[in-house]
Parts: sequence; C-alpha cells; structure tokens
Amino acid sequence: MILHHQPMSAPSRFVRLLLAEYGVSAELREERPWERRAEFLALNPAGTLPVLVAEAGVPVCGAHPIAEYLDETRGVMARDRRLMPEYPLERAEVRRLVDWFILKLESDVLRALVRERIDKLHMPADRGGGAPDSGAMRAARANVRQHLRYLNWLAGTRDWLGAKSVSAADMAAGAAVSVLDYMGEIDWNEAPQARDWYSRVKSRPAFRPLLGDRVRGLTPVSHYADLDF
Amino acid sequence: MILHHQPMSAPSRFVRLLLAEYGVSAELREERPWERRAEFLALNPAGTLPVLVAEAGVPVCGAHPIAEYLDETRGVMARDRRLMPEYPLERAEVRRLVDWFILKLESDVLRALVRERIDKLHMPADRGGGAPDSGAMRAARANVRQHLRYLNWLAGTRDWLGAKSVSAADMAAGAAVSVLDYMGEIDWNEAPQARDWYSRVKSRPAFRPLLGDRVRGLTPVSHYADLDF
Repeated sequence: MILHHQPMSAPSRFVRLLLAEYGVSAELREERPWERRAEFLALNPAGTLPVLVAEAGVPVCGAHPIAEYLDETRGVMARDRRLMPEYPLERAEVRRLVDWFILKLESDVLRALVRERIDKLHMPADRGGGAPDSGAMRAARANVRQHLRYLNWLAGTRDWLGAKSVSAADMAAGAAVSVLDYMGEIDWNEAPQARDWYSRVKSRPAFRPLLGDRVRGLTPVSHYADLDF
Repeated sequence: MILHHQPMSAPSRFVRLLLAEYGVSAELREERPWERRAEFLALNPAGTLPVLVAEAGVPVCGAHPIAEYLDETRGVMARDRRLMPEYPLERAEVRRLVDWFILKLESDVLRALVRERIDKLHMPADRGGGAPDSGAMRAARANVRQHLRYLNWLAGTRDWLGAKSVSAADMAAGAAVSVLDYMGEIDWNEAPQARDWYSRVKSRPAFRPLLGDRVRGLTPVSHYADLDF
C-alpha cells in the first residue's frame, strides 16, 4: 500500500496511526496539495489528503473512508486490538469523536495554524506562500483553549476518549493533538487529565514514527518526543 | 426516533432520505443551530445538525455517524435495498462521494448560499441576521459550475453515482442538489446527464417529503417539485 500524506496534517497522521496499530506497512509519499499535481488529482479529484492506494492500485480517499476501509479489512480480524467497539451506538460515539478531531478541530484551529506556521514556509509565493497572517493565527488560537477544555473533560470522565478500550477516537485526537503540541500551541498545565491521556497515547509503539518527524523551518517544542513530558 | 434537523440543510436532508429509503419513521424536529439552545448542545456539543436520537434516547451526531449507524442497524438487513455496496473498496467509493457532497460541496457552496439566502431571513440581528453578503454569495456561486460539471461527468459515466445500484452516494448528492435547485442556483441546460440522474432520484418515494418543504421568505423555482422538470 502507498499512503499519500502530509507529515503535519492531522487527518494524515490519524491514518498513519491506524495503519501502525494494525501492523499494516505502507510506503509514505509526501504530497504538497497546493501544487495540484495532475497525477495526484487523478487519484483524488478533491485534491485533499490522505489518500491510501490499496489493493489493485485502487485509491481510498479521505480519512473517514480510509478508517472505515481499514476497520472492515483489518479491524474486524484484529479481535481485542480492533479500534472500533462492538455495538453500533458505541461505534457512533467513536465516529462522532473522530469527526470532532479530524474535521471540527481541523477547521476551527489546525488548518489555519498549520497553513500559517508551516505550509507557508514551503509554498512558493504564487501558491500562497509568504509571511504568516497574524489575524488568522489569533482567530485559530482563540479556539485552542476551548478544544483543550473539552479534551480534558473527556479524558477525565472516561478511560479512553471514545470507548472503554482504546479506539479510533484516541488515534484521531492523538493525531490532532500531536500537531498542536509540535507547534507548542498547548499549555498542558491547563489540562492535566488530557496530559495524562496524551502521555498514554504517545507511548504506544504506533506513535513513535510521528514523534520522529521534523519539519524544515520549525523545530518542535522541547517535550514533543518526550514520553513522560 | 427523533431527528433534529434543518429543512434546507443538505446533511439533514441526506439523513431524511436514508431514513425514508429504509422505511424508518422518525419525528422531525426543526432546530436553529444559531440559537445554541442548551438542551440541544447537551445532545451534540458540536452544535451541528443532524442529530438522530436513537434507541434508549442515545444521540447519534452528524451525517456520517448516522449514515453508518443506519447501515449497520438497517442496511445490512435490507438485502437488495441496502444503500451500501458489498465490497470494502466499493463502499470506500460511496463514502468518498458522500464526503464530497455532504462536506466539500457544503463548504465550497452550500453553507454560504444557505446562510446568506435563507438562514439570515430567520436569524435575529445579534445572531448574524441581516442583509445577505453579496461577496460571499459570489464566491460560492463561482464554485457551483465546477461541482455541476463533476456531477454531470459522474452521472454520464455510471448507472448511479457511486455504485452499480442506487447507494448512499445518490442520497447525499440528491440532498445537496435539491437545496441548490430549490434556490434556483442550477442551470440544468449545462448538465443534461446530471439532470437525467436527478430526475430519477427525485422520483423516488423517499424524496417526496423534501419536495414538499417550503421555507418562509423564499419560494422555490417553478420546477422544484416537478418530477419531469
């Protein structure tokens, strides 16, 4: 399998975590969606990441279709390592939280912060590169605290975020939080229960490759790869 | 079951179509998300629609979790009326298109047009009501034509949009197109194959209640409820 991805994109990281948890090896290919390469648009006309090229070269496009595809082809055989709970209403709660972290946190916070702080370092000027827009960053940062409060509440009232055992919800949240943490956008003192939960998630072997990622032009905060903070 | 919805919201209409196709009756309750009612936020902290209150009063939040929930609890028993195909890669294609029409077309086009042309008629000024923003409408309309071209291509190369038989992809696209069509935003002469497909979709009994919806302050185009256009 081939995964077209961006290292600092939460939906891409979410899929990398699912693949690693299920022990599926995939070749990673970094794609810069702003280049709008014809070969990539032929795989996914939406031009978005991630895209998993699965059996027989067929592309599976988008975090949600990929997550369901991996659950159907790997999860159901994984027994107690399956990242989806057993009952439909429990699965609905996991899917709600995956949407929350991969769609809502992405659009409330991450898309703008990653674009302004990371992507613009690598974009040519005619594709949107240049100086970061401080207004867009301020608006996104105003939402970080609310999201952190909700994460802290979830982590404080449940063993894992979406179910009794670890699930795709923890992978989605872990993916999103890891990007925010890399950029130093999280004040962990404000969210002690979220911090405990994140420490458990990032200690999982599946998380290791993500903690090794480095982006040219932005070094991570000092505790980024520290499993005990 | 109770469905909290907005009559002119594509994700809400998508779920109404799925419910009707599976013969599930649900009480419809109109929710105005901009009011941010505490009782509604307790059901869905994201404050978004649709929300399906399912067995035992448990809320299922969001079009994608609801669609998967209905597939798991109704679709798998519906045999040849199931709105998801049999194989994982085929299901991945249906899910890609559901995302396309319910998330991408929503954010490229519908969210702005529905807000400016419909919601603002019913919002108090301190919640965002007032005169429509012509710049936002222009930006959204610039995307309609590209979406219509893609829909026309899909309809011209496949029996149904997402699979060999009718699927959730047709319901998602039908839901989104019906809102655009109500507002008179589609020039059907530009998309004859999409028009043939839409004529078949809107002739299905499940579509009838949607064609009866009327919004205060905006009458639909004359052909809106006409099954032969």
